[in-house]
Amino acid sequence: MRAGDRIGTLAWNGYRHLELYYGVSGMGAVTHTINPRLFADQIAYIVNHAEDAYVFFDLTFVPLVEKLAPQCPGVRGWVAMTDRAHVPQARLAKLLCYEDLLGAENGDYAWPQFDEWAASGLCYTSGTTGNPKGTLYAHRTTVLHAYAASLPDVFNVSAREVILPVVPMFHVNSWGVAYLAPMNGAKLVLPGAGLDGKSLYELFETEGVTVTAGVPTVWLGLLAYVAEHGLRFSSLRRAVVGGSACPPAMITRFAELGVECIHAWGMTEMSPLGSFGMLKGKHLGMPPEQQFEKRVKQGRAIFGVEMKIVDGAGRELPRDGKAFGDLLVRGPWVTCGYFKGEGGDILRDGWFPTGDVATIDPDGYMQITDRSKDVIKSGGEWISSIELENIAVAHPAIAEAAAIGAAHPKWDERPLIVAVRKAGAEVTREELLTFYEGKVAKWWIPDDVVFVEALPHTATGKLLKTQLRQEFAKHKLPTA
Amino acid sequence: MRAGDRIGTLAWNGYRHLELYYGVSGMGAVTHTINPRLFADQIAYIVNHAEDAYVFFDLTFVPLVEKLAPQCPGVRGWVAMTDRAHVPQARLAKLLCYEDLLGAENGDYAWPQFDEWAASGLCYTSGTTGNPKGTLYAHRTTVLHAYAASLPDVFNVSAREVILPVVPMFHVNSWGVAYLAPMNGAKLVLPGAGLDGKSLYELFETEGVTVTAGVPTVWLGLLAYVAEHGLRFSSLRRAVVGGSACPPAMITRFAELGVECIHAWGMTEMSPLGSFGMLKGKHLGMPPEQQFEKRVKQGRAIFGVEMKIVDGAGRELPRDGKAFGDLLVRGPWVTCGYFKGEGGDILRDGWFPTGDVATIDPDGYMQITDRSKDVIKSGGEWISSIELENIAVAHPAIAEAAAIGAAHPKWDERPLIVAVRKAGAEVTREELLTFYEGKVAKWWIPDDVVFVEALPHTATGKLLKTQLRQEFAKHKLPTA
Repeated sequence: MRAGDRIGTLAWNGYRHLELYYGVSGMGAVTHTINPRLFADQIAYIVNHAEDAYVFFDLTFVPLVEKLAPQCPGVRGWVAMTDRAHVPQARLAKLLCYEDLLGAENGDYAWPQFDEWAASGLCYTSGTTGNPKGTLYAHRTTVLHAYAASLPDVFNVSAREVILPVVPMFHVNSWGVAYLAPMNGAKLVLPGAGLDGKSLYELFETEGVTVTAGVPTVWLGLLAYVAEHGLRFSSLRRAVVGGSACPPAMITRFAELGVECIHAWGMTEMSPLGSFGMLKGKHLGMPPEQQFEKRVKQGRAIFGVEMKIVDGAGRELPRDGKAFGDLLVRGPWVTCGYFKGEGGDILRDGWFPTGDVATIDPDGYMQITDRSKDVIKSGGEWISSIELENIAVAHPAIAEAAAIGAAHPKWDERPLIVAVRKAGAEVTREELLTFYEGKVAKWWIPDDVVFVEALPHTATGKLLKTQLRQEFAKHKLPTA
Repeated sequence: MRAGDRIGTLAWNGYRHLELYYGVSGMGAVTHTINPRLFADQIAYIVNHAEDAYVFFDLTFVPLVEKLAPQCPGVRGWVAMTDRAHVPQARLAKLLCYEDLLGAENGDYAWPQFDEWAASGLCYTSGTTGNPKGTLYAHRTTVLHAYAASLPDVFNVSAREVILPVVPMFHVNSWGVAYLAPMNGAKLVLPGAGLDGKSLYELFETEGVTVTAGVPTVWLGLLAYVAEHGLRFSSLRRAVVGGSACPPAMITRFAELGVECIHAWGMTEMSPLGSFGMLKGKHLGMPPEQQFEKRVKQGRAIFGVEMKIVDGAGRELPRDGKAFGDLLVRGPWVTCGYFKGEGGDILRDGWFPTGDVATIDPDGYMQITDRSKDVIKSGGEWISSIELENIAVAHPAIAEAAAIGAAHPKWDERPLIVAVRKAGAEVTREELLTFYEGKVAKWWIPDDVVFVEALPHTATGKLLKTQLRQEFAKHKLPTA
């Protein structure tokens, strides 16, 4: 490997993956963590686009690597992250063994000094449109992000804490945990592939985990296991939730178990942390309901990140917790463009458009109300598709729902609900529309409902609204 | 004022001083905090050397400023930090009023953007030799230092904490507290000039202070007041101690009051933080005596600072907690030279020589055993002057003592104790020497004792050993 080379990883949260983080970046090469949950064709695209010199993989991914290798001729070697005894029988011409490579070296390597702007990491986003795009991290941005991520109102992990990142190390550097744990001398517990409720609970208890971080889905599994077996956490005190909106009930359930559930928000393009939902001193004396109003939001900007919301014309909107607009961010670890210039100049006057629509309240707590491209623009006013979807799925007969803008001759767009009924449940178009009354402003009530068998999703489980908008491009609203 | 101008302050910890910190540095000028406890001639030297364009002063310092003004013709204005009604009757030609200056402006100032290496602050050290030398801080170094100072194992001040810096804002930016409190949204309580035990205790209680920081002398006053009145702290949880070695008994006394006393170490040339004495996870299960052994040391290097100890030939010494040598440091907020090049190139292969002699133990805890220039070099081996002094003052008849190296024909130097007896107490030379037996290695036992009426000190209260060494340059040791 040479300085600047991209080195791919297809790996769980394990100690060899951590060694790669520091070994690859420390020698001046670029740790390129790849999300193995993407479709194989997308991964092949990413490996080729990044021009990975080597790809390191956990044994779980042997079948995937066998598929990738023929599509990625530029890769000089596929390194199985194991010892000689466990090297797989794989159909791979350029197969190498991790521990053999390490065993051939002594410990006297002289770590080079290089410019702080040298690239340390690379991570691709799996957008809902177009090819994945890469975000390059520099040593400078990574260190600054790690400082900020360690702050008392962010991860706050001292040398006396035990942290287990459930969030994968292939998902934006496990939100910085792979850096901030060693930086602060905390004990780092890496769960490998066992992310089911039972495995996690037992690991928490065995290793005395005090802090953890992950997406809501994982916590649903953990909380279900804990409830089913009537268990308690003996050491866990804080659970950081991000990746998608944290269900309010999850915050309550964690609190009942003595665990503070902290809502965080970020993006691949932000290294990833942008905001964290810790309370301020003034909230401590408030009743739990008022504290809860803060906790369900995505949190305050962490020091270093600036946020603002703007309307369609780019005018800054008030921080009153009501006005919502496009969320723009800037800061030392916010990207200014994608790897190899993909997507061109993406900043607006130096600000990165997150693609989210949000409110910011007078205390600085940000709440995402929609994706910019999903917001429904009715007569120049914006309607939150997420709010309409939340109401639809609150109906007992609805399993899943999408709210999209359908063309309207007078209002440009009006809300259309595309919904999936629960198995065996009954609900009519009219009943569902009536269900909105009193829950939103009158002009937010959807103009129509269409029931379907299933909704389209991305590989990472997000609603594929672009496809829905294409499918319903010619939908005729009864109000049109 | 223009960008780059130095702006002097002679002020206590108060809100106008904080406004100056941000106003002066934020406009691109340099906040030059001056220690008003220095001799007036030293202050005049500093103001002239820094070429301060303006000097802002609290009303306490009117008599001082009247003395300074004639000696500092380059100062374009002396600004009384008060409102019109309280402007003093002072013999000052260029007297201005702080609130008048502020009142003449509106709030629409557009803060400039400038290079991160632009100077933000300036602080002079009052060494025991030569003229004071200035350390310039950049915005970059100040922000990085503030991040590091906020870490969970350093000040760890969240938006739910209330912090009162007793350490003055003229003393290396109050160890960073003036920056880290606003940065983390903590409540900042500024005590003004009232630093006696009663004033501090009452302010702690009234404002719900949870964290504080200062030198041991201040805590002696506070603890005495608390003991005398049988009081407890209702909100205080942590007291950071630095500036000089923390007496072990102070750590115990604070602990009895439910306050964790944390030993910190730093230097003006280090912005100032270098190390902090928080325990590691592995220490939590240990008996209190073993924890105490860590707490009395100066602490572990904070992330960003590297430390090593070297012998007289510059060879790195082991981190075994026993070997002691010159302590060298480097890091993003460690200076590489003094203002205007005073003192020339001060680094040794990129490392800043702290002038301290220290041990580092296997856990990374550093303990200062001496000043480099005070260490007694006997036959090529080093003897800690501080350890000899600590033993002397542990004798019930000794009020204060200095250990210096006296010339010896065979050993180059041998230890000489210069001591002050307590009023009315009696102790002979022989009795004091016998007192060392069994407390140190035989060859560490001093060769002689001289009793004096008083020892010389610097303006900031440090022992002036240079003067003692001059006075005793021709002292004839009985062993010589």
